[in-house]
Amino acid sequence: MSLPAPEPTDLQEALIVANGGRVGSGLLRRLHQQARVIIATDGAASRLLRRGITPDFVVGDLDSLDPEARSRIPAASLVYAPDQDRCDLDKAIEVSIERGFRHITVVGGLGRRWDHSLTTISLLIAYADKARVRLVRGSTVIMAVTDRLTISGSAGDRVSLIAFAPVQGVTLTGVAWPLNGATLRPGSQGVSNRMTQAVAELTIESGCVVVCHHASRREARP
Amino acid sequence: MSLPAPEPTDLQEALIVANGGRVGSGLLRRLHQQARVIIATDGAASRLLRRGITPDFVVGDLDSLDPEARSRIPAASLVYAPDQDRCDLDKAIEVSIERGFRHITVVGGLGRRWDHSLTTISLLIAYADKARVRLVRGSTVIMAVTDRLTISGSAGDRVSLIAFAPVQGVTLTGVAWPLNGATLRPGSQGVSNRMTQAVAELTIESGCVVVCHHASRREARP
Repeated sequence: MSLPAPEPTDLQEALIVANGGRVGSGLLRRLHQQARVIIATDGAASRLLRRGITPDFVVGDLDSLDPEARSRIPAASLVYAPDQDRCDLDKAIEVSIERGFRHITVVGGLGRRWDHSLTTISLLIAYADKARVRLVRGSTVIMAVTDRLTISGSAGDRVSLIAFAPVQGVTLTGVAWPLNGATLRPGSQGVSNRMTQAVAELTIESGCVVVCHHASRREARP
Repeated sequence: MSLPAPEPTDLQEALIVANGGRVGSGLLRRLHQQARVIIATDGAASRLLRRGITPDFVVGDLDSLDPEARSRIPAASLVYAPDQDRCDLDKAIEVSIERGFRHITVVGGLGRRWDHSLTTISLLIAYADKARVRLVRGSTVIMAVTDRLTISGSAGDRVSLIAFAPVQGVTLTGVAWPLNGATLRPGSQGVSNRMTQAVAELTIESGCVVVCHHASRREARP
């Protein structure tokens, strides 16, 4: 599961396009411009080709790739990863990290299948210590944070913190209802905060919190 | 936050209708018939009244309840719960448990707002030890399990286990890819299993796993 590409640096970004949910054309174009490589999970390659984008790599079982799409992708771009125990998005994130990417953006990871969407969220948690993986869906960006995060946005943006297990020492500034060393547990305590300035700062002492940043005026970008 | 109703027994079910996602009329009718009480979170009361159902209780800040709906609900049914730190669904589950209900079904808890939907999932985890709280969305039922669960369905139904923190001693039978004392961590290991018979059995030694049961032929009911 290694990619035949030149060595990237830590600051370069990989864009992963999964097959689980709608991705707007404008958003896809902007994210594609920012990214150094664009990776499709298996069947998502067809989605990209239909929009005139040839993915640099296609990762997965390759059983969802239709013959027409397959014929248009160079063999060297096909990364066959047959592990039945893991989904293609999981493999694509791992491949990106193996290639040295520490900033990874995922689109198409939230959709109609709730089991897939929740699995995507659990993948953010799984890889939180290894890379900055952000999940983008429209104007919402979701990340799992174990140490600190600067959220860049606008006053009025909505920020929610969701704990799936206890999180200690949570400090959040730049919002209407700041936190100072709080313990968050599963529940609704952290939902629907509001940014009061262009930047909010989050720090955590231990545990992992899922952050949802919903931009009020444009696409969000923590 | 106590409800002025007769004492229920453990086997009686409370149905909570939240305001966060679409609820089909047929599903709502069936769940309503099964439940002993039907509780609306604040603004969801209007949704119920439009379908000809008067909720037994309305729980929340009561600031989302439009005047017309308010005029049609007896004052004794309004449970004012003004805690700004928690969402109305959280309060409605707590009120149900305080009244002795140990089987709680939630509809309308998954919708377009990802922060709300993920908070709903974290509420399942928060209350997993206190009651059987199941979240129903169409043909999918989601529960958080800390001990054991019997999943009643049909061969071919999809069952996914999602861990947001490590879960030890996970045993799952009656499925195509059974587990025997496995450790599940955040990631995609547990997604998209298939039931091979009408019943699947899940047991867990420690931790909390989120179970998604998607019925292939009818509404799911773990």
